[in-house]
Amino acid sequence: MNLSSFIKVFMPKDRIFYQLFEQVADNLVRIGEVLRETVITPTPEKRVELARKIEDLEHVNDDYTHRIFLELGQNFITPFDREDIHYLASALDDVADYIHGASKRIAMYRINQPNESIMKLSDLIYQAVVELKKAIYELRNLKNLRIITDACVRINSLENHADDIYDAAVAKLFDYEKDPLVVMKMREIYQSLETATDKCEDAANVMESIIVKYA
Amino acid sequence: MNLSSFIKVFMPKDRIFYQLFEQVADNLVRIGEVLRETVITPTPEKRVELARKIEDLEHVNDDYTHRIFLELGQNFITPFDREDIHYLASALDDVADYIHGASKRIAMYRINQPNESIMKLSDLIYQAVVELKKAIYELRNLKNLRIITDACVRINSLENHADDIYDAAVAKLFDYEKDPLVVMKMREIYQSLETATDKCEDAANVMESIIVKYA
Amino acid sequence: MNLSSFIKVFMPKDRIFYQLFEQVADNLVRIGEVLRETVITPTPEKRVELARKIEDLEHVNDDYTHRIFLELGQNFITPFDREDIHYLASALDDVADYIHGASKRIAMYRINQPNESIMKLSDLIYQAVVELKKAIYELRNLKNLRIITDACVRINSLENHADDIYDAAVAKLFDYEKDPLVVMKMREIYQSLETATDKCEDAANVMESIIVKYA
Repeated sequence: MNLSSFIKVFMPKDRIFYQLFEQVADNLVRIGEVLRETVITPTPEKRVELARKIEDLEHVNDDYTHRIFLELGQNFITPFDREDIHYLASALDDVADYIHGASKRIAMYRINQPNESIMKLSDLIYQAVVELKKAIYELRNLKNLRIITDACVRINSLENHADDIYDAAVAKLFDYEKDPLVVMKMREIYQSLETATDKCEDAANVMESIIVKYA
Repeated sequence: MNLSSFIKVFMPKDRIFYQLFEQVADNLVRIGEVLRETVITPTPEKRVELARKIEDLEHVNDDYTHRIFLELGQNFITPFDREDIHYLASALDDVADYIHGASKRIAMYRINQPNESIMKLSDLIYQAVVELKKAIYELRNLKNLRIITDACVRINSLENHADDIYDAAVAKLFDYEKDPLVVMKMREIYQSLETATDKCEDAANVMESIIVKYA
Repeated sequence: MNLSSFIKVFMPKDRIFYQLFEQVADNLVRIGEVLRETVITPTPEKRVELARKIEDLEHVNDDYTHRIFLELGQNFITPFDREDIHYLASALDDVADYIHGASKRIAMYRINQPNESIMKLSDLIYQAVVELKKAIYELRNLKNLRIITDACVRINSLENHADDIYDAAVAKLFDYEKDPLVVMKMREIYQSLETATDKCEDAANVMESIIVKYA
């Protein structure tokens, strides 16, 4: 709230959206970094601590998203179509939610042996949020659209790659894991991670349609 | 359909939306009441009967939602932005759907021993729909915005509380329940109940952005 | 991309949307046909091959959806409200995604004995996409609205029927299937199929609200 009013005072109204989306992008990259640490750390205590850190960062994300929606209500002039701003903010918020959902379960279910598929999916998520950040920072001036389209293309292929890893991981789980409770837990985690990449793709699609309109 | 045409005759067009949203609110509170009965009743027959009652009320909700969408198509003048009406109606419809999904499974899976987490979650849902009703009834005149913002704040904290109960319930389930089929059934039920509170929060968020615009 | 520019050259801009939606409709009917083959074929190799065919058709659907969104960005004049085009394209895309999700799992989990519920659900999906096609082809001229409303009514009852079959299938699964891993796999498949019919209903609802506005 305070930051939001602070922003209002110091910049032309529609600049607020760029600023808020960039803050979301920075925060998502931070979340992606902590996720990677979370899934490779060997010590359970550390893992729980990192998962809690992601939870905090996810709350920060909620605040930014909330602010974007409030600004959307208060501003008649918006840099992009209102629906696009709404879709983009929602997709980016979902990315944070699903990463948080995965990290919470990794800690809660005490997944203590390092897992190849989880590490691969987390790495793909990290790469995807880095690409999202590149594209989001380019929205402000739209000088170099190629940067946005390239990032979106890469996010799409990262998501396809995540699909394959997810399918293989689930198939392996059903074939080799005999404890159904472990199967349930692992599948939940794989699913949250894979869905996080879907949401990155959703965000990329919105940005693609934005540049089509404004280029 | 008849009611809808009845409404059209007796009130100015954009009043219809207030009326329909208030009917949805009343119906959701009714659904919340029946849910609470459903999860505490000791007799299976009674439980099945109450679950069927929720199913009927959910169908009523579908009709209201359907009517709101039709009115949205027929009216050029709407009291709020079209997207907000669409988002709000969808979120409220989802609340009913997820409560129905939970009650249906509680009956179908014959969950006959009273379950602490289910009762707590159902109670939080009931409180949330009561808050939703307060806020929705205030939309008509927007005289006392404080009533809406307070309700939205309470719905948000109810949803956070539901998250914690859900996490604890699932963790307990995986730790103590040895029958994986029971784990699956219970988790499905917990999930539907928890998602119902998420949808209450979505509805609250839409109302918050509505008052930001129209206050 | 090439086809898209080809289209642009040879038809008035807003005609593109009818053309693209009709291509989606044709493709969905094709997917529905292959799904039915997939679930009745007795030979595993054939099943895997058909599932791969659905995957290819789903990618084609993605391209059409993507093009619709791009056209939405490039065209100021649209035959229907932008949100309706967006909702309809998304719902139709989801139909293809959930059918693909089901067929992928049927192959991946090696569901080799024919399953009554899967066949019934697949048949309902096929009927629903055929009704969707009828309605979509009528959007172009809106001469005979009855064709659209009748199709939407049938899609709604097909979806209700699918709900009942889904509930019965899941209840039976929990009652008679002792292997929890099999329960998990089958439930996933039932769920994807049932959700595909939900998405058909979503698409029907959008078309209903479109004709309310433009009739």
